[in-house]
Amino acid sequence: MKKTLVLSLLLIGAFTAFSQTKEEQMLKEIYKSSLTNAKCYPWLDHLSNTIGSRLSGSTGAEKAVVYTKAQLETLGLDKVYLQEVMVPKWVRGEKEIGYLKTGNKKIDFAICALGGSVATPKKGIEAAVIEVKSLEELTVLGKEKVKGKIIFFNRPMDPEFVETFKAYGSCVDQRSSGAREAGKLGALAVIVRSMNLRLDDFPHTGSTNYGDISNDLKIPAAAISTNGAELLSKNLKENPTAKFFFRQSCETFDDVLSYNVVGEIKGTEHPERIMVVGGHLDSWDLGDGSHDDGAGCVQSMEVLNIFKNIGYKPKNTLRVVLFMNEENGVRGGIEYENQSNKNNENHIFALESDSGGFSPRGFSIEADEANFNKISSWGKLFEPYLIHRFVRGFPGVDIGPLQSKHIVKVGLQPDSQRYFDYHHAANDTFDAVNKRELELGAAAMASLIYLVDQNGTIK
Amino acid sequence: MKKTLVLSLLLIGAFTAFSQTKEEQMLKEIYKSSLTNAKCYPWLDHLSNTIGSRLSGSTGAEKAVVYTKAQLETLGLDKVYLQEVMVPKWVRGEKEIGYLKTGNKKIDFAICALGGSVATPKKGIEAAVIEVKSLEELTVLGKEKVKGKIIFFNRPMDPEFVETFKAYGSCVDQRSSGAREAGKLGALAVIVRSMNLRLDDFPHTGSTNYGDISNDLKIPAAAISTNGAELLSKNLKENPTAKFFFRQSCETFDDVLSYNVVGEIKGTEHPERIMVVGGHLDSWDLGDGSHDDGAGCVQSMEVLNIFKNIGYKPKNTLRVVLFMNEENGVRGGIEYENQSNKNNENHIFALESDSGGFSPRGFSIEADEANFNKISSWGKLFEPYLIHRFVRGFPGVDIGPLQSKHIVKVGLQPDSQRYFDYHHAANDTFDAVNKRELELGAAAMASLIYLVDQNGTIK
Repeated sequence: MKKTLVLSLLLIGAFTAFSQTKEEQMLKEIYKSSLTNAKCYPWLDHLSNTIGSRLSGSTGAEKAVVYTKAQLETLGLDKVYLQEVMVPKWVRGEKEIGYLKTGNKKIDFAICALGGSVATPKKGIEAAVIEVKSLEELTVLGKEKVKGKIIFFNRPMDPEFVETFKAYGSCVDQRSSGAREAGKLGALAVIVRSMNLRLDDFPHTGSTNYGDISNDLKIPAAAISTNGAELLSKNLKENPTAKFFFRQSCETFDDVLSYNVVGEIKGTEHPERIMVVGGHLDSWDLGDGSHDDGAGCVQSMEVLNIFKNIGYKPKNTLRVVLFMNEENGVRGGIEYENQSNKNNENHIFALESDSGGFSPRGFSIEADEANFNKISSWGKLFEPYLIHRFVRGFPGVDIGPLQSKHIVKVGLQPDSQRYFDYHHAANDTFDAVNKRELELGAAAMASLIYLVDQNGTIK
Repeated sequence: MKKTLVLSLLLIGAFTAFSQTKEEQMLKEIYKSSLTNAKCYPWLDHLSNTIGSRLSGSTGAEKAVVYTKAQLETLGLDKVYLQEVMVPKWVRGEKEIGYLKTGNKKIDFAICALGGSVATPKKGIEAAVIEVKSLEELTVLGKEKVKGKIIFFNRPMDPEFVETFKAYGSCVDQRSSGAREAGKLGALAVIVRSMNLRLDDFPHTGSTNYGDISNDLKIPAAAISTNGAELLSKNLKENPTAKFFFRQSCETFDDVLSYNVVGEIKGTEHPERIMVVGGHLDSWDLGDGSHDDGAGCVQSMEVLNIFKNIGYKPKNTLRVVLFMNEENGVRGGIEYENQSNKNNENHIFALESDSGGFSPRGFSIEADEANFNKISSWGKLFEPYLIHRFVRGFPGVDIGPLQSKHIVKVGLQPDSQRYFDYHHAANDTFDAVNKRELELGAAAMASLIYLVDQNGTIK
């Protein structure tokens, strides 16, 4: 008995050692492929510099669907197809104009309409401004003080958060709900400080959400750059009755047909078990969406390219999904889940990259205790690649709707310090993405998918 | 006996818990101070944009000495002083010219003299080019083939290294020794591919070292951009006898007087035990040295500013040293050690930041087993700040000469992916540094120094 036990332990040890070595070897091959033979950077170049911005319903979004489908078709996958999805179509219109009239001065401000906002009247809006730091402060002011005014939400992202997404999360209610709440109180419009930790001159767009308030309560909402917000605040302190003028001509049209782009490698052992890797193909309209989320799309595509290059055939089905309409509707993510339900599909794993193409640092994991521990236990394998963080957290908006019973969801966590310098702004462009950082992210994603594929998830 | 033991354990437990909580609290204060109240970014702005490049012996270097001393004097330290050091003075002269004559075409190339190189004759050098990938390949060619030629060293940095400093280390012999070795074999000059993982148009300078060869064997050495190296190689394959022309007018003058800048807070308990934090004040002349190593200087200064802001008085003496002449001589580091020896000083700890102002990821530690383990054991305290890496490794060039018997030396390890995009090139400028990343590095440095100060090192 004792001997058998010793023998068993030796065998387990030997097996572990062998298996460890094989996994180490595979990660090495994955990284080598990504750092020396990747397509993600030229793909992003095309998406960003040839196609450009890809807001849902735009010609850019259409071109991106055609381009990425064609590129996936070059990878020798088992299936590449489009999944129909109706998406909102919001169009910015003419470049927005904003200025403050104070004394005999007129100070121009860089502003942009928030996504989904209504337009101002053609002649613009001019009114006195009340600066607030929060929705609560607005509520305290009440109807009497708010009525007929422009409400200026000016709470900065808190620099004390080391993780910038936390600073964003603690601040973004001003953008998402400011117009709705101010509209209810009779405000004429809202101006929102950009969600940006840096002081610069770029206004950052992003969705504002009117909820179910009636059309007559919907008021125009615009973002102002962080430098602009500081300057506006300063001028209002000096001259509280100064009037702000702004004009925007954005418009919401009927929904239009668009697509998720899907590519698939059939699993050799468990074709019915599906692993998804993806990002979102749409972007805001101001920059070219290189970080948000061109990077996540091309990294997801690269995972399949890496497996092709190193000759790895996954046991489970691997599907890349480039979701449409994350930015202003999540229609692609919802439709993907609908179709999955309709086809009784079984998703065991989903990985999203939608936090920029920066140097990868870890994974944000949504899983039960057993699966979280299992994934975290692979940390050692990732150390040579400077991937150190395995934490519980939000995995991604597009894979949010996916609800297979035992699904494990993970988000790639790149370094977040620079992300909000570019997020939803005109400077989210190709030159802000570093080739190696992008490739390292793709390699980390491919490595995790390889380990999930080999070791399975726990039901 | 048993009761006493239990009581002791409880007391130890309580003390540990208290001490842990106090340390956690202090790190929180340090980070808060750095992320909300730092001076390092405006200091760097001045160093980079008002003063500019700071090559040893230049007026920029002189101005940087005056400026940083004056800034340290605003921090209420116990002592601020300059330490005299004689430094080399090498001057680039006119902008370099380089082109290839192939057929009836003339192709211009962006080149720059390597630091310390001799000039070409005034009329330039024109010769056929032999491309090699290594010093070994040069040796194999031998005198007969090398004589009268321009040797083109074109081994790229290997992208497979995840840590870019390893890629640099495996490649930089071409730059540092190429001219010396080719000169011995009778070559006319060398052109070296820039130490840059990215393909771009910036030639990167850096020291070349003739060693003790006689003056008549010293040949001119220039760097060519990575795009240029690719293009030159392609053209030489098509036309192996094409002649390359280049001209540079750089010159080495007599050594001049310069300074290390030193600021000091006297230790409250062990004033005789010295902790050093520093970077190097000199830079190459092409950019403004924002990453290399303006960042390290202002981060080191910020450590003292943080302690001032949070009212922390170190038990051991804390000294910030801005070393002169890291780039082409390390004279400042050597002189600092000389003075330390002369004064019988006892350095227990030295921390250098000279790997760019990027998002900090950990520390590179040179220490015996006991001290390495002690420092690594603080890893948990750094996790909330996304500092994960505690590894044995090279701590820094300037603190290299420091030889106190029990000294522990550490280098800050920022993310290295983008470092060589800027290193020693014209694009190493202020806009390439992110404010938060810089501040997070300073906070990590202050945190480590606080922990060393509180817990001591092991003799």
